[in-house]
Amino acid sequence: MKLIRYGKLGQERTGVQIDGKNFDTSGFGEDYNEAFFASGGLKRLADFVANNQLEKLNSDIRIASPIARPSKILCIGLNYKDHAAETGAKIPSEPIIFMKSTTAVIGPDDDIMIPKGSTKTDWEVEFCVVIGKKASYVEEADAEDYIAGYLLHNDVSEREYQLERGGTWDKGKGCDTFAPLGPVLATRDEIKDINDIDIWLKLNGEIVQKSNTKNLIFDVPFIISYVSKFMTLLPGDIISTGTPAGVGLGMNPPVYLKPGDVLELGADSLGVQKQNVIAYRP
Amino acid sequence: MKLIRYGKLGQERTGVQIDGKNFDTSGFGEDYNEAFFASGGLKRLADFVANNQLEKLNSDIRIASPIARPSKILCIGLNYKDHAAETGAKIPSEPIIFMKSTTAVIGPDDDIMIPKGSTKTDWEVEFCVVIGKKASYVEEADAEDYIAGYLLHNDVSEREYQLERGGTWDKGKGCDTFAPLGPVLATRDEIKDINDIDIWLKLNGEIVQKSNTKNLIFDVPFIISYVSKFMTLLPGDIISTGTPAGVGLGMNPPVYLKPGDVLELGADSLGVQKQNVIAYRP
Repeated sequence: MKLIRYGKLGQERTGVQIDGKNFDTSGFGEDYNEAFFASGGLKRLADFVANNQLEKLNSDIRIASPIARPSKILCIGLNYKDHAAETGAKIPSEPIIFMKSTTAVIGPDDDIMIPKGSTKTDWEVEFCVVIGKKASYVEEADAEDYIAGYLLHNDVSEREYQLERGGTWDKGKGCDTFAPLGPVLATRDEIKDINDIDIWLKLNGEIVQKSNTKNLIFDVPFIISYVSKFMTLLPGDIISTGTPAGVGLGMNPPVYLKPGDVLELGADSLGVQKQNVIAYRP
Repeated sequence: MKLIRYGKLGQERTGVQIDGKNFDTSGFGEDYNEAFFASGGLKRLADFVANNQLEKLNSDIRIASPIARPSKILCIGLNYKDHAAETGAKIPSEPIIFMKSTTAVIGPDDDIMIPKGSTKTDWEVEFCVVIGKKASYVEEADAEDYIAGYLLHNDVSEREYQLERGGTWDKGKGCDTFAPLGPVLATRDEIKDINDIDIWLKLNGEIVQKSNTKNLIFDVPFIISYVSKFMTLLPGDIISTGTPAGVGLGMNPPVYLKPGDVLELGADSLGVQKQNVIAYRP
Protein backbone atom coordinates (compact mmCIF):
# COMPACT_ATOMS: atom_id res chain seq x y z
CA MET A 1 0.00 0.00 0.00
CA LYS A 2 1.13 3.57 -0.70
CA LEU A 3 -0.20 6.24 1.63
CA ILE A 4 -0.51 9.89 0.65
CA ARG A 5 -1.83 13.04 2.26
CA TYR A 6 -3.07 16.01 0.32
CA GLY A 7 -4.70 19.43 0.56
CA LYS A 8 -3.86 22.79 2.08
CA LEU A 9 -1.07 23.10 4.64
CA GLY A 10 -2.53 22.38 8.07
CA GLN A 11 -5.76 20.99 6.63
CA GLU A 12 -4.38 17.83 5.07
CA ARG A 13 -6.62 14.88 4.21
CA THR A 14 -5.59 11.28 3.70
CA GLY A 15 -5.46 9.12 0.59
CA VAL A 16 -3.78 6.19 -1.08
CA GLN A 17 -1.92 5.87 -4.36
CA ILE A 18 -2.87 2.94 -6.59
CA ASP A 19 -1.12 2.37 -9.94
CA GLY A 20 0.20 5.91 -9.83
CA LYS A 21 -3.23 7.50 -9.28
CA ASN A 22 -4.28 9.19 -6.04
CA PHE A 23 -7.53 8.34 -4.27
CA ASP A 24 -9.25 9.94 -1.28
CA THR A 25 -9.55 7.98 1.99
CA SER A 26 -10.68 10.85 4.21
CA GLY A 27 -13.83 8.83 4.97
CA PHE A 28 -11.52 6.49 6.86
CA GLY A 29 -11.55 9.16 9.55
CA GLU A 30 -8.01 8.94 10.93
CA ASP A 31 -4.88 10.89 10.11
CA TYR A 32 -1.66 8.97 9.46
CA ASN A 33 -0.04 9.76 12.79
CA GLU A 34 1.43 8.12 15.88
CA ALA A 35 -1.95 6.83 17.11
CA PHE A 36 -2.73 5.39 13.66
CA PHE A 37 0.52 3.43 13.39
CA ALA A 38 0.45 2.39 17.06
CA SER A 39 -3.03 0.87 16.85
CA GLY A 40 -2.80 -1.29 13.72
CA GLY A 41 -3.97 1.51 11.46
CA LEU A 42 -2.26 0.10 8.35
CA LYS A 43 -4.39 -3.07 8.59
CA ARG A 44 -7.58 -1.04 9.19
CA LEU A 45 -6.74 1.23 6.25
CA ALA A 46 -6.13 -1.78 3.96
CA ASP A 47 -9.58 -3.12 4.93
CA PHE A 48 -11.14 0.30 4.28
CA VAL A 49 -9.49 0.52 0.86
CA ALA A 50 -10.63 -3.02 -0.02
CA ASN A 51 -14.23 -2.44 1.02
CA ASN A 52 -14.97 1.06 -0.23
CA GLN A 53 -15.33 2.76 -3.59
CA LEU A 54 -12.63 5.46 -3.46
CA GLU A 55 -12.89 8.79 -5.21
CA LYS A 56 -10.03 9.62 -7.56
CA LEU A 57 -8.31 12.91 -6.78
CA ASN A 58 -7.63 15.65 -9.29
CA SER A 59 -4.05 15.81 -10.51
CA ASP A 60 -3.73 19.48 -9.48
CA ILE A 61 -4.07 18.93 -5.74
CA ARG A 62 -1.20 19.79 -3.40
CA ILE A 63 0.51 16.62 -2.17
CA ALA A 64 1.56 16.89 1.48
CA SER A 65 3.91 14.86 3.66
CA PRO A 66 2.44 11.31 3.69
CA ILE A 67 2.53 11.25 7.47
CA ALA A 68 1.44 13.77 10.07
CA ARG A 69 4.05 15.42 12.29
CA PRO A 70 6.09 12.71 14.00
CA SER A 71 7.51 12.90 17.53
CA LYS A 72 10.97 13.11 15.97
CA ILE A 73 13.04 12.97 12.81
CA LEU A 74 16.42 11.32 13.27
CA CYS A 75 19.09 11.38 10.61
CA ILE A 76 22.19 9.29 10.08
CA GLY A 77 25.21 11.33 9.00
CA LEU A 78 27.92 10.29 6.54
CA ASN A 79 26.36 6.89 5.81
CA TYR A 80 27.69 6.59 2.22
CA LYS A 81 31.46 6.28 1.81
CA ASP A 82 31.57 8.56 -1.23
CA HIS A 83 29.72 11.33 0.65
CA ALA A 84 32.02 11.06 3.68
CA ALA A 85 34.97 11.37 1.28
CA GLU A 86 33.61 14.41 -0.58
CA THR A 87 33.07 16.32 2.69
CA GLY A 88 36.58 15.48 3.87
CA ALA A 89 35.26 13.41 6.80
CA LYS A 90 36.45 10.01 7.98
CA ILE A 91 34.24 6.96 7.47
CA PRO A 92 32.35 6.74 10.76
CA SER A 93 33.01 3.64 12.88
CA GLU A 94 29.44 3.74 14.16
CA PRO A 95 26.40 5.72 12.99
CA ILE A 96 26.35 9.48 13.49
CA ILE A 97 22.92 10.58 14.75
CA PHE A 98 21.46 14.06 14.55
CA MET A 99 17.95 15.43 14.93
CA LYS A 100 15.83 17.60 12.68
CA SER A 101 13.10 19.92 13.94
CA THR A 102 9.71 18.57 12.84
CA THR A 103 8.66 22.15 11.96
CA ALA A 104 10.81 21.69 8.85
CA VAL A 105 8.38 19.19 7.27
CA ILE A 106 6.71 20.16 3.98
CA GLY A 107 5.15 18.32 1.06
CA PRO A 108 7.32 16.82 -1.69
CA ASP A 109 6.63 19.59 -4.20
CA ASP A 110 6.41 22.58 -1.89
CA ASP A 111 8.89 25.45 -2.26
CA ILE A 112 12.18 25.34 -0.37
CA MET A 113 12.92 28.67 1.31
CA ILE A 114 16.45 29.90 1.72
CA PRO A 115 16.75 31.13 5.33
CA LYS A 116 17.25 34.87 5.90
CA GLY A 117 20.83 35.77 5.12
CA SER A 118 21.80 32.18 4.27
CA THR A 119 24.41 31.59 1.57
CA LYS A 120 25.03 27.84 1.93
CA THR A 121 21.73 25.98 1.50
CA ASP A 122 22.35 22.51 0.09
CA TRP A 123 20.44 19.36 -0.96
CA GLU A 124 20.61 15.71 0.19
CA VAL A 125 18.43 12.95 -1.30
CA GLU A 126 17.74 10.28 1.35
CA PHE A 127 15.89 7.01 1.84
CA CYS A 128 13.90 7.01 5.10
CA VAL A 129 12.34 4.35 7.25
CA VAL A 130 9.14 5.06 9.20
CA ILE A 131 8.77 3.31 12.56
CA GLY A 132 5.61 1.21 13.04
CA LYS A 133 5.72 0.39 16.73
CA LYS A 134 7.45 1.56 19.89
CA ALA A 135 11.09 0.50 19.70
CA SER A 136 13.60 0.35 22.55
CA TYR A 137 16.71 -1.88 22.60
CA VAL A 138 15.59 -3.69 19.47
CA GLU A 139 17.80 -6.55 18.20
CA GLU A 140 19.00 -6.20 14.62
CA ALA A 141 17.34 -9.53 13.72
CA ASP A 142 13.97 -8.22 14.93
CA ALA A 143 14.24 -4.74 13.42
CA GLU A 144 12.01 -5.39 10.43
CA ASP A 145 9.02 -5.93 12.74
CA TYR A 146 9.33 -2.29 13.80
CA ILE A 147 9.03 -0.84 10.30
CA ALA A 148 5.80 0.72 9.02
CA GLY A 149 7.27 1.65 5.67
CA TYR A 150 9.57 3.91 3.70
CA LEU A 151 9.60 7.37 2.19
CA LEU A 152 11.77 9.84 0.31
CA HIS A 153 13.34 12.87 2.03
CA ASN A 154 15.32 15.83 0.82
CA ASP A 155 17.46 16.49 3.89
CA VAL A 156 17.99 20.16 3.05
CA SER A 157 20.97 21.53 4.98
CA GLU A 158 22.48 24.93 5.61
CA ARG A 159 26.22 24.21 5.70
CA GLU A 160 27.31 27.38 7.48
CA TYR A 161 24.73 26.79 10.23
CA GLN A 162 25.60 23.08 10.37
CA LEU A 163 29.39 23.29 10.34
CA GLU A 164 30.61 26.81 11.10
CA ARG A 165 28.36 28.09 13.88
CA GLY A 166 29.52 25.89 16.79
CA GLY A 167 27.87 22.94 18.42
CA THR A 168 25.94 20.20 16.72
CA TRP A 169 24.65 19.78 13.18
CA ASP A 170 21.05 20.30 14.38
CA LYS A 171 21.37 24.06 13.77
CA GLY A 172 21.64 23.62 10.01
CA LYS A 173 19.02 20.94 9.51
CA GLY A 174 15.73 22.20 10.97
CA CYS A 175 14.99 25.46 9.15
CA ASP A 176 11.45 25.84 7.81
CA THR A 177 10.89 23.86 4.57
CA PHE A 178 14.10 21.84 5.07
CA ALA A 179 12.32 18.46 5.15
CA PRO A 180 10.28 17.74 2.02
CA LEU A 181 8.78 14.26 2.62
CA GLY A 182 6.96 11.94 0.24
CA PRO A 183 5.05 11.83 -2.06
CA VAL A 184 4.18 8.37 -0.69
CA LEU A 185 4.80 6.25 2.35
CA ALA A 186 5.30 2.78 0.84
CA THR A 187 4.51 -0.03 3.25
CA ARG A 188 7.05 -2.82 3.76
CA ASP A 189 5.41 -5.18 1.28
CA GLU A 190 5.81 -2.62 -1.53
CA ILE A 191 9.60 -2.99 -1.61
CA LYS A 192 11.25 -6.27 -2.49
CA ASP A 193 14.76 -5.39 -1.38
CA ILE A 194 15.45 -2.24 0.62
CA ASN A 195 19.16 -2.81 0.01
CA ASP A 196 18.70 -2.26 -3.71
CA ILE A 197 16.92 1.07 -4.12
CA ASP A 198 18.23 3.55 -6.67
CA ILE A 199 18.19 7.12 -5.39
CA TRP A 200 18.99 10.24 -7.39
CA LEU A 201 18.75 14.02 -7.38
CA LYS A 202 18.83 16.58 -10.19
CA LEU A 203 19.73 20.26 -9.85
CA ASN A 204 18.20 22.31 -12.66
CA GLY A 205 17.73 19.19 -14.77
CA GLU A 206 21.21 17.74 -14.30
CA ILE A 207 21.92 14.62 -12.27
CA VAL A 208 24.17 15.50 -9.32
CA GLN A 209 23.46 12.60 -6.92
CA LYS A 210 23.01 9.00 -8.07
CA SER A 211 23.48 5.97 -5.88
CA ASN A 212 21.77 2.93 -4.43
CA THR A 213 20.95 1.88 -0.89
CA LYS A 214 23.30 -1.09 -1.36
CA ASN A 215 26.06 1.48 -0.78
CA LEU A 216 24.87 2.36 2.74
CA ILE A 217 27.64 1.83 5.30
CA PHE A 218 25.08 0.92 7.99
CA ASP A 219 21.90 -0.71 6.70
CA VAL A 220 18.33 -0.18 7.92
CA PRO A 221 18.07 -3.07 10.46
CA PHE A 222 21.41 -2.09 11.99
CA ILE A 223 20.37 1.55 12.20
CA ILE A 224 17.02 0.81 13.87
CA SER A 225 18.72 -1.43 16.42
CA TYR A 226 21.51 1.09 17.01
CA VAL A 227 19.31 4.17 17.43
CA SER A 228 16.88 2.29 19.71
CA LYS A 229 19.70 1.83 22.24
CA PHE A 230 20.01 5.60 22.71
CA MET A 231 16.36 6.64 22.68
CA THR A 232 12.91 5.15 22.33
CA LEU A 233 11.43 5.34 18.85
CA LEU A 234 7.70 5.95 18.58
CA PRO A 235 5.27 4.88 15.83
CA GLY A 236 5.51 7.40 13.01
CA ASP A 237 9.06 8.47 13.87
CA ILE A 238 11.34 8.85 10.86
CA ILE A 239 14.95 7.77 10.46
CA SER A 240 16.64 9.24 7.39
CA THR A 241 19.46 6.93 6.36
CA GLY A 242 21.97 9.38 4.90
CA THR A 243 22.90 10.85 1.55
CA PRO A 244 25.38 9.74 -1.14
CA ALA A 245 28.01 11.91 -2.86
CA GLY A 246 26.98 14.83 -5.04
CA VAL A 247 25.92 17.54 -2.60
CA GLY A 248 26.82 21.16 -3.20
CA LEU A 249 29.33 21.22 -0.33
CA GLY A 250 31.36 18.51 -2.06
CA MET A 251 31.76 20.35 -5.37
CA ASN A 252 34.86 22.31 -6.27
CA PRO A 253 34.09 25.13 -5.83
CA PRO A 254 30.99 24.42 -3.69
CA VAL A 255 27.61 25.14 -5.29
CA TYR A 256 24.72 26.31 -3.14
CA LEU A 257 21.04 26.88 -3.83
CA LYS A 258 19.67 30.25 -4.97
CA PRO A 259 16.17 31.46 -5.74
CA GLY A 260 15.02 30.09 -9.08
CA ASP A 261 16.83 26.77 -8.77
CA VAL A 262 14.80 23.59 -9.22
CA LEU A 263 15.46 20.30 -7.45
CA GLU A 264 14.05 16.96 -8.56
CA LEU A 265 14.76 13.78 -6.65
CA GLY A 266 13.50 10.23 -6.57
CA ALA A 267 13.86 6.69 -5.32
CA ASP A 268 12.56 3.36 -6.66
CA SER A 269 9.00 2.70 -5.39
CA LEU A 270 8.94 5.99 -3.46
CA GLY A 271 8.11 8.45 -6.22
CA VAL A 272 9.57 11.78 -7.23
CA GLN A 273 9.80 15.19 -5.55
CA LYS A 274 10.18 18.55 -7.30
CA GLN A 275 10.94 21.75 -5.41
CA ASN A 276 11.36 25.32 -6.51
CA VAL A 277 13.88 27.26 -4.45
CA ILE A 278 12.70 30.68 -3.29
CA ALA A 279 13.94 33.49 -1.05
CA TYR A 280 12.73 33.54 2.54
CA ARG A 281 9.23 34.82 3.13
CA PRO A 282 7.30 34.77 6.42
CA MET B 1 0.06 30.92 38.18
CA LYS B 2 1.84 27.63 38.70
CA LEU B 3 0.67 24.74 36.53
CA ILE B 4 1.10 21.11 37.51
CA ARG B 5 0.10 17.75 36.05
CA TYR B 6 -0.37 14.64 38.14
CA GLY B 7 -1.45 11.00 38.06
CA LYS B 8 -0.26 7.80 36.43
CA LEU B 9 2.16 7.93 33.50
CA GLY B 10 0.17 8.34 30.29
CA GLN B 11 -3.03 9.23 32.19
CA GLU B 12 -2.01 12.58 33.58
CA ARG B 13 -4.53 15.15 34.76
CA THR B 14 -4.04 18.86 35.16
CA GLY B 15 -3.85 21.05 38.24
CA VAL B 16 -2.45 24.23 39.70
CA GLN B 17 -0.25 24.90 42.70
CA ILE B 18 -1.35 27.66 45.07
CA ASP B 19 0.72 28.55 48.15
CA GLY B 20 2.59 25.27 47.81
CA LYS B 21 -0.58 23.14 47.73
CA ASN B 22 -1.79 21.27 44.66
CA PHE B 23 -5.34 21.55 43.35
CA ASP B 24 -7.17 19.65 40.61
CA THR B 25 -8.23 21.49 37.43
CA SER B 26 -9.17 18.46 35.35
CA GLY B 27 -12.69 19.92 35.04
CA PHE B 28 -11.08 22.59 32.87
CA GLY B 29 -11.00 19.91 30.20
CA GLU B 30 -7.78 20.70 28.35
CA ASP B 31 -4.30 19.28 28.72
CA TYR B 32 -1.37 21.71 28.95
CA ASN B 33 -0.11 21.14 25.42
CA GLU B 34 0.64 22.98 22.18
CA ALA B 35 -3.04 23.68 21.42
CA PHE B 36 -3.57 25.01 24.95
CA PHE B 37 -0.68 27.49 24.80
CA ALA B 38 -1.42 28.45 21.19
CA SER B 39 -5.02 29.39 21.90
CA GLY B 40 -4.74 31.59 24.97
CA GLY B 41 -5.09 28.66 27.35
CA LEU B 42 -3.24 30.39 30.20
CA LYS B 43 -5.86 33.15 30.28
CA ARG B 44 -8.76 30.64 30.13
CA LEU B 45 -7.16 28.58 32.89
CA ALA B 46 -6.74 31.66 35.10
CA ASP B 47 -10.45 32.39 34.64
CA PHE B 48 -11.34 28.78 35.46
CA VAL B 49 -9.22 28.89 38.62
CA ALA B 50 -10.79 32.21 39.68
CA ASN B 51 -14.35 31.03 39.14
CA ASN B 52 -14.34 27.46 40.45
CA GLN B 53 -13.96 25.80 43.81
CA LEU B 54 -10.91 23.57 43.28
CA GLU B 55 -10.39 20.25 45.03
CA LYS B 56 -7.13 19.92 46.96
CA LEU B 57 -5.03 16.94 45.90
CA ASN B 58 -3.56 14.39 48.29
CA SER B 59 0.11 14.83 48.98
CA ASP B 60 0.91 11.25 47.90
CA ILE B 61 -0.03 11.69 44.24
CA ARG B 62 2.58 11.28 41.51
CA ILE B 63 3.56 14.66 40.09
CA ALA B 64 4.15 14.52 36.31
CA SER B 65 5.81 16.89 33.86
CA PRO B 66 3.79 20.14 34.06
CA ILE B 67 3.36 20.18 30.31
CA ALA B 68 2.35 17.46 27.85
CA ARG B 69 4.86 16.23 25.29
CA PRO B 70 6.19 19.22 23.35
CA SER B 71 7.14 19.24 19.66
CA LYS B 72 10.76 19.62 20.73
CA ILE B 73 13.18 20.11 23.58
CA LEU B 74 16.16 22.27 22.69
CA CYS B 75 19.15 22.67 24.96
CA ILE B 76 21.92 25.25 25.08
CA GLY B 77 25.33 23.73 25.74
CA LEU B 78 28.16 25.22 27.82
CA ASN B 79 26.20 28.33 28.77
CA TYR B 80 27.93 28.89 32.15
CA LYS B 81 31.63 29.80 32.05
CA ASP B 82 32.51 27.61 35.02
CA HIS B 83 30.88 24.55 33.39
CA ALA B 84 32.68 25.14 30.08
CA ALA B 85 35.94 25.34 32.04
CA GLU B 86 35.35 22.14 34.04
CA THR B 87 34.69 20.13 30.87
CA GLY B 88 37.83 21.51 29.22
CA ALA B 89 35.79 23.31 26.53
CA LYS B 90 36.25 26.84 25.21
CA ILE B 91 33.68 29.51 26.06
CA PRO B 92 31.34 29.39 23.05
CA SER B 93 31.21 32.52 20.90
CA GLU B 94 27.55 31.84 20.12
CA PRO B 95 25.05 29.40 21.67
CA ILE B 96 25.54 25.67 21.15
CA ILE B 97 22.20 24.02 20.34
CA PHE B 98 21.37 20.37 20.70
CA MET B 99 18.10 18.46 20.78
CA LYS B 100 16.69 16.01 23.28
CA SER B 101 14.23 13.25 22.38
CA THR B 102 10.85 14.03 23.95
CA THR B 103 10.51 10.35 24.92
CA ALA B 104 12.97 11.19 27.71
CA VAL B 105 10.42 13.28 29.64
CA ILE B 106 9.37 12.09 33.11
CA GLY B 107 7.93 13.68 36.23
CA PRO B 108 10.19 15.55 38.67
CA ASP B 109 10.32 12.75 41.24
CA ASP B 110 10.27 9.70 38.96
CA ASP B 111 13.20 7.29 38.95
CA ILE B 112 16.16 7.91 36.63
CA MET B 113 17.18 4.72 34.84
CA ILE B 114 20.79 4.08 33.93
CA PRO B 115 20.78 2.87 30.29
CA LYS B 116 21.79 -0.74 29.63
CA GLY B 117 25.55 -1.05 29.91
CA SER B 118 26.03 2.65 30.64
CA THR B 119 28.86 3.69 32.98
CA LYS B 120 28.80 7.50 32.57
CA THR B 121 25.33 8.78 33.46
CA ASP B 122 25.58 12.34 34.80
CA TRP B 123 23.33 15.15 36.14
CA GLU B 124 22.75 18.77 35.03
CA VAL B 125 20.38 21.16 36.82
CA GLU B 126 18.90 23.65 34.32
CA PHE B 127 16.49 26.58 34.12
CA CYS B 128 14.11 26.21 31.15
CA VAL B 129 11.87 28.56 29.26
CA VAL B 130 8.57 27.33 27.77
CA ILE B 131 7.48 28.96 24.52
CA GLY B 132 3.99 30.49 24.50
CA LYS B 133 3.47 31.28 20.83
CA LYS B 134 4.92 30.38 17.45
CA ALA B 135 8.33 32.01 17.15
CA SER B 136 10.37 32.55 13.99
CA TYR B 137 13.04 35.25 13.54
CA VAL B 138 12.09 36.89 16.82
CA GLU B 139 13.96 40.06 17.80
CA GLU B 140 15.67 39.96 21.17
CA ALA B 141 13.66 42.98 22.33
CA ASP B 142 10.39 41.14 21.58
CA ALA B 143 11.43 37.77 22.98
CA GLU B 144 9.54 38.10 26.27
CA ASP B 145 6.21 38.11 24.39
CA TYR B 146 6.95 34.55 23.25
CA ILE B 147 7.38 33.12 26.75
CA ALA B 148 4.64 31.07 28.44
CA GLY B 149 6.69 30.42 31.56
CA TYR B 150 9.57 28.60 33.17
CA LEU B 151 10.35 25.20 34.63
CA LEU B 152 13.14 23.14 36.17
CA HIS B 153 14.92 20.38 34.22
CA ASN B 154 17.51 17.79 35.13
CA ASP B 155 19.30 17.46 31.77
CA VAL B 156 20.51 13.92 32.50
CA SER B 157 23.39 13.03 30.17
CA GLU B 158 25.33 9.89 29.31
CA ARG B 159 28.86 11.21 28.72
CA GLU B 160 30.19 8.24 26.77
CA TYR B 161 27.21 8.37 24.39
CA GLN B 162 27.45 12.18 24.18
CA LEU B 163 31.19 12.58 23.69
CA GLU B 164 32.85 9.28 22.73
CA ARG B 165 30.48 7.63 20.26
CA GLY B 166 30.86 9.92 17.24
CA GLY B 167 28.57 12.57 15.91
CA THR B 168 26.46 14.99 17.89
CA TRP B 169 25.60 15.24 21.56
CA ASP B 170 22.00 14.13 20.86
CA LYS B 171 23.00 10.48 21.38
CA GLY B 172 23.71 10.99 25.07
CA LYS B 173 20.78 13.23 25.94
CA GLY B 174 17.58 11.45 24.95
CA CYS B 175 17.62 8.13 26.81
CA ASP B 176 14.41 7.20 28.60
CA THR B 177 13.97 9.11 31.92
CA PHE B 178 16.71 11.61 31.01
CA ALA B 179 14.41 14.67 31.19
CA PRO B 180 12.73 15.09 34.58
CA LEU B 181 10.62 18.27 34.24
CA GLY B 182 8.78 20.29 36.86
CA PRO B 183 7.21 20.12 39.40
CA VAL B 184 5.62 23.38 38.20
CA LEU B 185 5.46 25.54 35.13
CA ALA B 186 5.61 29.06 36.60
CA THR B 187 4.04 31.66 34.34
CA ARG B 188 6.01 34.81 33.52
CA ASP B 189 4.37 36.92 36.23
CA GLU B 190 5.56 34.49 38.94
CA ILE B 191 9.20 35.47 38.51
CA LYS B 192 10.42 38.99 39.21
CA ASP B 193 13.85 38.67 37.59
CA ILE B 194 14.76 35.63 35.50
CA ASN B 195 18.36 36.80 35.59
CA ASP B 196 18.52 36.24 39.34
CA ILE B 197 17.36 32.68 39.96
CA ASP B 198 19.39 30.47 42.28
CA ILE B 199 19.75 26.91 40.98
CA TRP B 200 21.31 23.99 42.83
CA LEU B 201 21.68 20.22 42.80
CA LYS B 202 22.58 17.73 45.54
CA LEU B 203 23.99 14.24 45.05
CA ASN B 204 23.20 12.00 48.02
CA GLY B 205 22.53 15.02 50.21
CA GLU B 206 25.64 17.02 49.30
CA ILE B 207 25.56 20.18 47.21
CA VAL B 208 27.49 19.67 43.97
CA GLN B 209 26.00 22.38 41.72
CA LYS B 210 25.15 25.87 42.95
CA SER B 211 24.81 28.91 40.74
CA ASN B 212 22.45 31.62 39.59
CA THR B 213 20.99 32.48 36.19
CA LYS B 214 22.88 35.81 36.38
CA ASN B 215 25.91 33.70 35.39
CA LEU B 216 24.42 32.59 32.06
CA ILE B 217 26.69 33.52 29.15
CA PHE B 218 23.67 33.98 26.83
CA ASP B 219 20.47 35.11 28.57
CA VAL B 220 16.90 34.00 27.85
CA PRO B 221 15.84 36.77 25.40
CA PHE B 222 19.05 36.34 23.41
CA ILE B 223 18.60 32.56 23.31
CA ILE B 224 14.98 32.74 22.11
CA SER B 225 15.92 35.19 19.38
CA TYR B 226 18.97 33.15 18.38
CA VAL B 227 17.27 29.74 18.24
CA SER B 228 14.29 31.18 16.34
CA LYS B 229 16.63 32.06 13.46
CA PHE B 230 17.48 28.39 12.90
CA MET B 231 14.07 26.77 13.41
CA THR B 232 10.50 27.70 14.25
CA LEU B 233 9.56 27.31 17.90
CA LEU B 234 6.04 26.11 18.66
CA PRO B 235 3.88 26.80 21.72
CA GLY B 236 4.90 24.38 24.46
CA ASP B 237 8.43 23.90 23.13
CA ILE B 238 11.13 23.92 25.79
CA ILE B 239 14.54 25.57 25.71
CA SER B 240 16.84 24.44 28.50
CA THR B 241 19.36 27.18 29.17
CA GLY B 242 22.42 25.17 30.24
CA THR B 243 24.02 23.92 33.44
CA PRO B 244 26.63 25.44 35.77
CA ALA B 245 29.79 23.73 37.08
CA GLY B 246 29.55 20.72 39.35
CA VAL B 247 28.63 17.85 37.04
CA GLY B 248 30.18 14.42 37.49
CA LEU B 249 32.23 14.72 34.30
CA GLY B 250 34.03 17.75 35.77
CA MET B 251 35.16 16.05 38.98
CA ASN B 252 38.65 14.63 39.43
CA PRO B 253 38.29 11.72 39.05
CA PRO B 254 34.85 11.89 37.36
CA VAL B 255 31.87 10.66 39.40
CA TYR B 256 28.93 9.02 37.64
CA LEU B 257 25.52 7.85 38.83
CA LYS B 258 24.90 4.34 40.12
CA PRO B 259 21.76 2.59 41.33
CA GLY B 260 20.88 3.76 44.82
CA ASP B 261 22.06 7.34 44.30
CA VAL B 262 19.63 10.15 45.06
CA LEU B 263 19.49 13.50 43.24
CA GLU B 264 17.71 16.57 44.58
CA LEU B 265 17.64 19.82 42.62
CA GLY B 266 15.82 23.10 42.75
CA ALA B 267 15.42 26.64 41.49
CA ASP B 268 13.82 29.73 43.03
CA SER B 269 10.06 29.81 42.27
CA LEU B 270 10.27 26.53 40.32
CA GLY B 271 10.22 23.99 43.15
CA VAL B 272 12.34 20.95 43.93
CA GLN B 273 12.88 17.60 42.17
CA LYS B 274 14.04 14.37 43.84
CA GLN B 275 15.03 11.31 41.82
CA ASN B 276 16.18 7.86 42.84
CA VAL B 277 18.67 6.35 40.42
CA ILE B 278 17.93 2.76 39.40
CA ALA B 279 19.29 0.16 36.99
CA TYR B 280 17.62 -0.12 33.56
CA ARG B 281 14.31 -1.95 33.47
CA PRO B 282 12.00 -2.27 30.46
